[in-house]
Amino acid sequence: MDLFEGILTRRSVRQFDTTKKISQSDLEDIIRAAQYAPSAHNKQPWEFFVITDKEQMTALRHVQPWTSFAKDASAVILVCGNTDEAFSRHKEDETWNYSDIDCSLASENLLLAAHAKGIGACFCGAAPMPKVIAGLQEMFSLPKNIRPLSIVILGYPKDEPKQPTDRFKPEKIHWNKW
Amino acid sequence: MDLFEGILTRRSVRQFDTTKKISQSDLEDIIRAAQYAPSAHNKQPWEFFVITDKEQMTALRHVQPWTSFAKDASAVILVCGNTDEAFSRHKEDETWNYSDIDCSLASENLLLAAHAKGIGACFCGAAPMPKVIAGLQEMFSLPKNIRPLSIVILGYPKDEPKQPTDRFKPEKIHWNKW
Repeated sequence: MDLFEGILTRRSVRQFDTTKKISQSDLEDIIRAAQYAPSAHNKQPWEFFVITDKEQMTALRHVQPWTSFAKDASAVILVCGNTDEAFSRHKEDETWNYSDIDCSLASENLLLAAHAKGIGACFCGAAPMPKVIAGLQEMFSLPKNIRPLSIVILGYPKDEPKQPTDRFKPEKIHWNKW
Repeated sequence: MDLFEGILTRRSVRQFDTTKKISQSDLEDIIRAAQYAPSAHNKQPWEFFVITDKEQMTALRHVQPWTSFAKDASAVILVCGNTDEAFSRHKEDETWNYSDIDCSLASENLLLAAHAKGIGACFCGAAPMPKVIAGLQEMFSLPKNIRPLSIVILGYPKDEPKQPTDRFKPEKIHWNKW
């Protein structure tokens, strides 16, 4: 698939063909794509928690209500940041951590790579919502420094791909002055 | 360019051919790609501040020291979030805003789209660093609700594209348990 075509035709997919499974090799390919995202000071502070167990996918709704369609998914990938490894500062005058931004860049690669393989995907949020982060950490026994950024729900689409809408808004471009 | 090839061969480019300019239409195309990223509750809370003025590009180093190579760029795009428009919560028990995550997803599309056009790009950070955010807001008279997430520095590469390195780390994949 052409790169521009992929970017412009990717849509969030929430209805899946429950008769088709994503192969482990395809899951590895799309995670490989995610790992090629840039990251602050090239720390690559990400971890990928893959869920293919139906009970666990179905239970996700208890920690993130917008993930109820994960019950019909083939796989779910939590893109998580290792906050100890990410570029960060913890000083009196400022505290910040690049985990969320780096994992967002990786998540976008993951969504595009899935689309290129004909796999539907939907990004559902974890960070920055503290209750969702804590819920996922508890549910999957994640260490406290492993911060889930996205819950990417994956499966082969049930229906024909949705038509792309025109999202381009030239009024959001500001040339040299606000 | 093939989507997978684009993701796997994209590298940060910091040395530019100063004799070649990026056309306005190419800048619009790569911003279009950025606007096709997903966003929380589809708020699309982004704004794109394009800098093509050499003095301004050269001055960026005063607010973000790692951007000194912007002096040789053809253009710089600040991907900014409108924190008033982004999906957010401001309550006693939790406060969060999706501006940074949404703008990160858009920034990755932007980097890939530039690469597909043979344009080199480097993501430099603004958010979450408070001093850089404030410096950019002051320098470009941005409203307080316009929060710069990335400083994407763009130009045609001076040298042959760098060889891709193998970044795939299968040990960062966790199958159904941590």
